This record gives sequence, structure tokens and C-alpha cells, in this order.
Amino acid sequence: MASGYLVRMPFLTRWNDNDQYGHLNNTVYYEAMDTAVNGWMIRDGGLDTSGDAIALCAASSCEFHEPAGFPEPLEVGIGVERLGRTSVTWSLGILRRGEDGPLATGRFVHVFVDAATRRPTPIPAGIRAAIEGQLVG
Amino acid sequence: MASGYLVRMPFLTRWNDNDQYGHLNNTVYYEAMDTAVNGWMIRDGGLDTSGDAIALCAASSCEFHEPAGFPEPLEVGIGVERLGRTSVTWSLGILRRGEDGPLATGRFVHVFVDAATRRPTPIPAGIRAAIEGQLVG
Amino acid sequence: MASGYLVRMPFLTRWNDNDQYGHLNNTVYYEAMDTAVNGWMIRDGGLDTSGDAIALCAASSCEFHEPAGFPEPLEVGIGVERLGRTSVTWSLGILRRGEDGPLATGRFVHVFVDAATRRPTPIPAGIRAAIEGQLVG
Amino acid sequence: MASGYLVRMPFLTRWNDNDQYGHLNNTVYYEAMDTAVNGWMIRDGGLDTSGDAIALCAASSCEFHEPAGFPEPLEVGIGVERLGRTSVTWSLGILRRGEDGPLATGRFVHVFVDAATRRPTPIPAGIRAAIEGQLVG
Repeated sequence: MASGYLVRMPFLTRWNDNDQYGHLNNTVYYEAMDTAVNGWMIRDGGLDTSGDAIALCAASSCEFHEPAGFPEPLEVGIGVERLGRTSVTWSLGILRRGEDGPLATGRFVHVFVDAATRRPTPIPAGIRAAIEGQLVG
Repeated sequence: MASGYLVRMPFLTRWNDNDQYGHLNNTVYYEAMDTAVNGWMIRDGGLDTSGDAIALCAASSCEFHEPAGFPEPLEVGIGVERLGRTSVTWSLGILRRGEDGPLATGRFVHVFVDAATRRPTPIPAGIRAAIEGQLVG
Repeated sequence: MASGYLVRMPFLTRWNDNDQYGHLNNTVYYEAMDTAVNGWMIRDGGLDTSGDAIALCAASSCEFHEPAGFPEPLEVGIGVERLGRTSVTWSLGILRRGEDGPLATGRFVHVFVDAATRRPTPIPAGIRAAIEGQLVG
Repeated sequence: MASGYLVRMPFLTRWNDNDQYGHLNNTVYYEAMDTAVNGWMIRDGGLDTSGDAIALCAASSCEFHEPAGFPEPLEVGIGVERLGRTSVTWSLGILRRGEDGPLATGRFVHVFVDAATRRPTPIPAGIRAAIEGQLVG
């Protein structure tokens, strides 16, 4: 349910996002989800993308309910389905700006790893605090 | 199991596919899968992308096992998990060129629709024949 | 000179816009310019992208002055360098949101063509009026 | 003249490269040129993209002569227009695979910089040798 998204990040579509069939290509929804989650972690969780702990995508999925297309402005609703020690499963919705019913719903599993060794590492404290403060009941 | 892919399509990586973390961004795997399936349907199934029946992505997913990066040449292995009347569920693997163990495994659900009305329509005969001839036991 | 841009369109960066060197890949500046010009023609000039007259890119160029990177929000300043009967040469600047000095300056030559024959056709009246009203001294 | 390209690099198109007008979006030609030059410098000039000297794009341009579209396989012809102490101006052609007349012709100015300070640095010896050996009369 879209109204369940406590955090929404803006996502503007681009001319070249529309494919030959005249709507956003399916891969753009993944760009939107990746951008929203990383942008939120940078802004509210202090993620330092040049730092020691980075988040890699271990799995993702999306269900496409309704088409969208440039020049529509979109938003991505962010929720958390599961918060582990080294990983987060995000529950995401692609929304029209200011509207509730999602055009697509997706999921990203981010695993935090040490930037050098690429081995799992605990979720940074700032990101955990932001998740617990904003996204978890 | 990668050796299960009866059809493999080439996929070349691009400089800008690598993101800030130095490997292919997760969205590129979806570009690879989308490209492989559409390219194969055009080449072997006679898909006419300006024709009456087009294939839209209803759902997709991917699990990322190992990183890859430009300039590595990749391939996409194509299989079919389910063949319906108006939809196909593709089972896909991202592979290093000439190798077997997949770097990532994914799934695409394509629904064929009438290009004008966007309502479900039977899978075109040429595409069904190619699937049955090449991909189904 | 940035302060010369009478029209500015928003452009949000994406996580995967940053390449391996940690900044926006050069191709993203072209996505920004293409998106800004088409978005403005749709919004203010009544461009119908499924209509009879469409704008194709005949030439483009960009000079890169300063790097930018996700998650910075950008803007594209739009000017007109030359307005012909069937073509427009846009003069464009990539700007930080709300700032003046352009990070990059570029040019797009759009030729209007008949969507079916792809032969040059006069600039649609609504687009010409918007250019003359907003962009030409 | 396309037959002037002594080096050609393969470039495969992708489903989502075609925009709403049914052909490769103009930005894809820049992806092709960027990919070809970087790929050739890595393969034949020993460019280490995690090394001390990296190549940044200072300017680029392209003229579009004929449309192309997925699933056509393309190639990029590479030439050198000017070889300086810290910069190279590449002369590039987008070609159909195995054909001569370019669909588009472009130019990239690469400036080599120190990866840490981002200040100009001499072209690495291996890259200079490859250019002189393969691309300069």
C-alpha cells in the first residue's frame, strides 16, 4: 500500500528512458530504486561512498503494474522489509509524484561489505539509526 | 546450471556500465537480459517490434553471485521456465564468454499484448515455434 | 555566460550516472541536454512525440569544465543560437541547481522531420512561438 | 573516409538503446565512442583504470549522418587527429559491422590526469606507443 511509504525520494524521467514502445524501459525502474535508496542513505544515513563500508546489490526484483513515461515526474517510496546485521531488504514503490498507488513495486537486497575486501561488514551505525528512526515501525 | 542454457547471446560491456564501485551496475544485468531475449525473439522468432503483438515486461528479478566489469565480454544464457498462452517466463543466466557458471541468474516474465490496445494477445506463432524448437525439452 | 539562460530545466542525477572515476560520465551530459530540450518543447511548445513532426539530433557537442556527481541536483540552461526554417541550434549549459557558472556547455542541432518519411519539415508553429517568446531576444 | 580507420572495435546495440522514435538515441553514440577508446587503451595501451593516470573527457562532438538501431551490430573506427603531451584528440566513426561509410563521425578530447590530484599528467608510455604504432601514419 503506497500510503505506507514514510519516505519518498524524487525521480525525474529522461527522454532516453522511453524505449521503442513509448514508455519507460523496465531497466529504468531499477535505476530509480537504486538511486532512491543510495540517495537516501547518503542524505540521511551518512553513507560515504568512498568510505570503508559500501552497499552492494545481492538481489532485486520488480513487478510492473502500470506504464509510465517521460516527461512524467516520479517518486520512489522507500520501506524496509527486513533489517539484518549486515544486510537490508528494501521494499520499494514507483509512484507518480504526489500520488499513492504504485506503478511498480520492487525489492532490493543490499549487503554491506568492506570496500577493500568485499566481505560482509555490519551496517554502518548512521544508516541503521536512520532506518530505525524513519522506516521501522 | 549454466550448462543447461541451449541458447546463448553475446553481450558486450561498456565503459559507462561500471559504476562508482568499479563493477557493472546492477541495472546493466537487466539490460543484458532484456536485450538477449528481445534479440533472440527478433532473430529466431520473427518478432516484429513495429508489428501487432509486442512483449512487455510484467515482472523481473535477478540474483547477483559474482561481480563482472568492463571490458569483460559477457553472454546471456536463455531458458524457458514456463510457456503460457499469452506469456513466457524466461530463465536467464549472465555468463562470462565461453564459461559455464553464471555470474547472475534472473527471470523475466513477458506478456504479449496488442500494440494498440495493450491487452494480452497470444504469443505469435513464430516465437512459440522457436521456443518449442530450441528451448523446451 | 550562465546568467544568459532565460529557461532552466531541472535534471536529477542517478546513482549509476557516476562512472568508475567517481563522477558523472560524459554521456550523461548529453542525456541532460536531450531531456531538457525535449521536455521544454513538450511542455511549452506543444511537441507531440507521437505526432507528424519530430525533432532528430543532427549534431551535438559538449565542453566539460568542472566535474559533477550524484547526488548533486543539476539544471540545464536553454538558449537558442540559431533558428532556421526546419532546424534549431540550441545553446545549452549544465548548471548546479540555483548557480550560474556552467559545469559544461553544449550545443544540439535539432532538425524537424516528418515522422513517417523522415524528411525535413518546418518547425511546428507552437515550438517556433515558444522559442521566439522565451528564448530569442 | 571510413577506410581510413586502422583500428575498429566492436559495439553491440541493446534493446533499450532505441528511443521512442525507434532508433538509437544520440547519447548511445557517445557511449560507443567512449567504450571503444577506453577499451582499446586498456587492451593495447595498458591503461590501468585504477592506476595513477586516467583519461578524462574534456570535450566531445558527433555528427549524425544515418540512423541505426537495435539489433544491428556496430563497430567504432578509431583514429587520432592530434597527439599532445598530456592530451589526445580522437577521430571516431560509428560503422555498421564490416562496412565502411560511417553512420556518424565524432571526436573526443581526452586529457590525462593524475588520479588523485586530477591535474594534467603526461600520456602513459604504453598508450603513446600504441597510438604511434597503430594510429599515427
